[in-house]
Amino acid sequence: MERRRYLRKTSLADCLAAWLQHPSAARLTEPETVATPLARGRITAAPVYALRSVPHFHCSAMDGIALRAEATFGAAETRPKRLDGGQYTVVDTGDPIPETADSVVMVEEVRWLEEGAIELIEAASPWQHIRLAGEDLVTTEMVLPSGHAVRAPDIAALLSCGVRELPVRRRPRVAVLPTGDELVDAFAPAAEQDQTGAIMETNSHLIGGLVAEWGGEALRSGIVRDTPEAVRQALHAALETADVVALNAGSSAGREDFVPRIIEEEGELLAHGVDIMPGKPMAIGVVRGKPVIGIPGYPVSAWVVCEQFLKPLLRQLLGLAQLQPERVAAVMGRKTPSCMGNEEFLRVKAARVGGRLVAVPLPRGASLLNSVVRADGVVRIPANLEGVEAGDSIWLEPLRPLEQIEASLLAVGSHDLLLDLISDWLNRRLPGAGLSSAHVGSLAGLMALRRGECHLAGTHLIDEATGEYNLSWVRRYLPDGDVALIHLAEREQGLIVPRGNPKGLRSLRDLVEQQALFINRQRGSGTRQLLDYLLGQEGLTGDRIPGYHRELYTHLAVAAAVKTGGADAGLGILAAARALELDFIPIASERYDLAVRTDALDLPQMRAVLEIIQDAEFQQQVQALGGYSMRGSGQRLL
Amino acid sequence: MERRRYLRKTSLADCLAAWLQHPSAARLTEPETVATPLARGRITAAPVYALRSVPHFHCSAMDGIALRAEATFGAAETRPKRLDGGQYTVVDTGDPIPETADSVVMVEEVRWLEEGAIELIEAASPWQHIRLAGEDLVTTEMVLPSGHAVRAPDIAALLSCGVRELPVRRRPRVAVLPTGDELVDAFAPAAEQDQTGAIMETNSHLIGGLVAEWGGEALRSGIVRDTPEAVRQALHAALETADVVALNAGSSAGREDFVPRIIEEEGELLAHGVDIMPGKPMAIGVVRGKPVIGIPGYPVSAWVVCEQFLKPLLRQLLGLAQLQPERVAAVMGRKTPSCMGNEEFLRVKAARVGGRLVAVPLPRGASLLNSVVRADGVVRIPANLEGVEAGDSIWLEPLRPLEQIEASLLAVGSHDLLLDLISDWLNRRLPGAGLSSAHVGSLAGLMALRRGECHLAGTHLIDEATGEYNLSWVRRYLPDGDVALIHLAEREQGLIVPRGNPKGLRSLRDLVEQQALFINRQRGSGTRQLLDYLLGQEGLTGDRIPGYHRELYTHLAVAAAVKTGGADAGLGILAAARALELDFIPIASERYDLAVRTDALDLPQMRAVLEIIQDAEFQQQVQALGGYSMRGSGQRLL
Repeated sequence: MERRRYLRKTSLADCLAAWLQHPSAARLTEPETVATPLARGRITAAPVYALRSVPHFHCSAMDGIALRAEATFGAAETRPKRLDGGQYTVVDTGDPIPETADSVVMVEEVRWLEEGAIELIEAASPWQHIRLAGEDLVTTEMVLPSGHAVRAPDIAALLSCGVRELPVRRRPRVAVLPTGDELVDAFAPAAEQDQTGAIMETNSHLIGGLVAEWGGEALRSGIVRDTPEAVRQALHAALETADVVALNAGSSAGREDFVPRIIEEEGELLAHGVDIMPGKPMAIGVVRGKPVIGIPGYPVSAWVVCEQFLKPLLRQLLGLAQLQPERVAAVMGRKTPSCMGNEEFLRVKAARVGGRLVAVPLPRGASLLNSVVRADGVVRIPANLEGVEAGDSIWLEPLRPLEQIEASLLAVGSHDLLLDLISDWLNRRLPGAGLSSAHVGSLAGLMALRRGECHLAGTHLIDEATGEYNLSWVRRYLPDGDVALIHLAEREQGLIVPRGNPKGLRSLRDLVEQQALFINRQRGSGTRQLLDYLLGQEGLTGDRIPGYHRELYTHLAVAAAVKTGGADAGLGILAAARALELDFIPIASERYDLAVRTDALDLPQMRAVLEIIQDAEFQQQVQALGGYSMRGSGQRLL
Repeated sequence: MERRRYLRKTSLADCLAAWLQHPSAARLTEPETVATPLARGRITAAPVYALRSVPHFHCSAMDGIALRAEATFGAAETRPKRLDGGQYTVVDTGDPIPETADSVVMVEEVRWLEEGAIELIEAASPWQHIRLAGEDLVTTEMVLPSGHAVRAPDIAALLSCGVRELPVRRRPRVAVLPTGDELVDAFAPAAEQDQTGAIMETNSHLIGGLVAEWGGEALRSGIVRDTPEAVRQALHAALETADVVALNAGSSAGREDFVPRIIEEEGELLAHGVDIMPGKPMAIGVVRGKPVIGIPGYPVSAWVVCEQFLKPLLRQLLGLAQLQPERVAAVMGRKTPSCMGNEEFLRVKAARVGGRLVAVPLPRGASLLNSVVRADGVVRIPANLEGVEAGDSIWLEPLRPLEQIEASLLAVGSHDLLLDLISDWLNRRLPGAGLSSAHVGSLAGLMALRRGECHLAGTHLIDEATGEYNLSWVRRYLPDGDVALIHLAEREQGLIVPRGNPKGLRSLRDLVEQQALFINRQRGSGTRQLLDYLLGQEGLTGDRIPGYHRELYTHLAVAAAVKTGGADAGLGILAAARALELDFIPIASERYDLAVRTDALDLPQMRAVLEIIQDAEFQQQVQALGGYSMRGSGQRLL
């Protein structure tokens, strides 16, 4: 019991050390032989020696003539030496030296006479201008040491010295076993996937892809059912062929105890539970002398555990050094509380804003794989901190080339589908550049802009006193004036309701009268602001609408809630309703603008954005979405 | 003619701009479709949108019970609400919410009664602790923009939202045509390869490997013969299927004019000749609307031209951003003259010595592919400089992970086979660490040590006055005393002669008497020092030995010269003679020591070296080479 308790809570460093120092993590000693042209990316399992010398003959280092040096002895300006055609051979650079010759005279020094005869006015010394055999490589010379990752020039060099095959480390074979009754194959018929409760089995593709990236070979199994016996059997079958077994639990908490228990019963459990988040419930152990890892079911947890445990293991099995993750100094854009006692792997967007590299947290749930897809990098919040403050210095571990991060614009603010569209256009116009966006609502966007957290903020905030958009808000919250306001689009807001509008909703007042279940946007969002403004005009208050206090962060999330029966209505844009094939009751038209730091206006990416939004083809694409007017787009309002 | 002259000399930047701005370098617009699980590393050709929401149902965010919130209204500490078994469902985290329920109560708040009944003392609000459908991804949301390099998490995310295939950019097809009558296939019978003048055709493997690494598809052709007609035909055949054609000329200067002429006749020659070294004679142009590049024959030139021209072209065709090469500040270890008017791409070894990152040039010939294999990085010497001085600040473009360079020891000095053996052992003991060595001879090694250019120097310098080794030299040239002298081995020096010793050589005196053609080591090498010491003792001078002034830099190179008939004898170590199956006439035994910076003695890599040379198994391996005594190895002499 005591041991078990210890195992349930261990530090990342301790767990990793226990894992890598266990004999089962010794490198795979049995090498395999591959043909040299196929060795790219493989790791040499032994030193590789030259089998031939390169070049294997003496050759000329110049364009000129090859001859015997002694035939030139005594030559001088006043007493030129004459040679006839049989006494020399014309050679180009790289040509072999004839056996009869031991010296090369440069073509510039030859005086050509009639009938192939020549004259020299200087004696040649033996072996001048000759590259000796073996100049590049000599037979038996070590070309590559062991543990070397083979690259294209290595392959050419090996072939040049006669090495047609070489011993390389076997790729560690990692069996990937997804377990869980709720799982359904990613290529199963739609009917199976559509069942409520069915979860797409995609972790094996995640883990398998990472294994391949790290030089291993993934053996993906079918889905293993949720009984100890099935898991046990699958584990033993996998151990027959694999070097490492990755058991991927279903995502529910109860099931994750399954795997460590089986590891403990069948072998040795090295650790269960580690102080990282996401990834806490991982388990590592050894069965039949082979490493076994229990990977949590939530995809972000699975990703973190693979990066922290599986990658170092594979590198060790391949005999490769453990490299520290690349990291760069950055500042946190926003106050970010974190759970004490766990090291948190926060996914962030990042950008260079006003000279600082700023990191802005993405949504943090362990189920949100899209937060990994969208991340520019990871920020680790140490276990002994309760979080970091806006402006704190942090280390960013980039997930994309830093140059690309530096070339991207960061938008924090209200969400609009046009931002994604602009990003795609931008990337095609300036490869490597992009427009990243974090969706926090209009007001939070202006705050982020004020804190120097982003280049621009999408905003649609109505002034309740005047009914005018954005200008008064920008003036109030960014009084220093370093911000331009650029008009992007007029767009329609309305009630998003199920197809056929079953509750027959026509207005906001109907929400109260029908007691329809509403899904709201968060406070500080322009849509929420608009809702409250319109309710006020009608003399209504939110408290009278069921669900008024349930908040989501994007138009699409609101539409999804309506689509799946989570709500009878939400306020949002036509494009979101259309995207999910829902009905839309227009309520108001509003102005959506971009608030932009003035020091970002001259960035080539920002200039490209301003061109794009005024591009006729782009505007046509926007019209096709419905609910937008692009008149005056690009106009500077402030 | 004017145009032609311009074409023959252009700057790298101009050539590259002409190449990338030509319409033929527009990205490959026709995408192809790949199954999502096979898309790793491919580049999206269009934005990819979610086809399903993730999750596609509402699920519990907690372990607890799902129920209708209204059934709990009015519950309070003093007035608990009782529900029977039919009114709630037990749910784990991630479980779907039953259609009848709209709220989750955490398990901690449930009071369990008899027969499945429960009691609650607090009302639940609708939709509390429920993760709504679409939380991670909503149908129609953009998951990946175009131009995105697909990674494992992207694949899992795409599969989770129903994307089973996606449009990616076609891999640019690069036809690689090696041309030259002197070329022989790397897998041809040995008899063909052994012919004098035959050059192994390995450039197509070099170019093909690089193309694959950069995301293209290489179509390697057989060897094309050296006539304009054959090259012309091969070019047109290649243009049928390839997007780009790489014509790789033979290495001789005359032949390289071939390719630009054909490009000019068949299409448009954009440039011929660029101010880089190696790589100068490259040619770029367009034939039938497709880019064609003439790559020089020397392998280092070919490598530089691929890196500078082919890589940017492939990135452009793939729609990827041009990334600047990574570079780090370093200092040049040694005065390095360079040819004005050309930007030189110098291959260097690099190491962190006494706090500075130091670069030491490798041999510079364009034919020496091994200089690329062994390089830690590249230093560019600008065209407007005549070279760089020792200690000058330079930029190093690393060819290996910087961390690995930082973890390596650099030895500059006398060459001994044991250094390669130590390097291999070191890499296996401390993965990532290694012992790089540059071979300059003993005395130059001590000079390098004094300049802070290396961690250690192998040395075997006899004191002509006392016959004692190394100590007086180290005291004289490194008087400040920050150097330790560690004994490595006693080794035999002798005459390396052809098998059967055809000239019957027995002593150095025989060299003079037989007028045998000698091959010498360079001044400042321990072997040269020993030769001169021994000659002096015999009352001889080097001038009386033919070939005394021909110098090579390593034992193996001397042995290779003897092997291939370039010399009748050379002075060197037994191991070198054995390696090439030559005969060996022992002349003297000498002490080979390691001079080590004292501040390097405590580096973990250096400590490992000291352990290795005292390791019994290592010492056995050395004995097996022959000619070494390892007695006292590791002893500190100074």
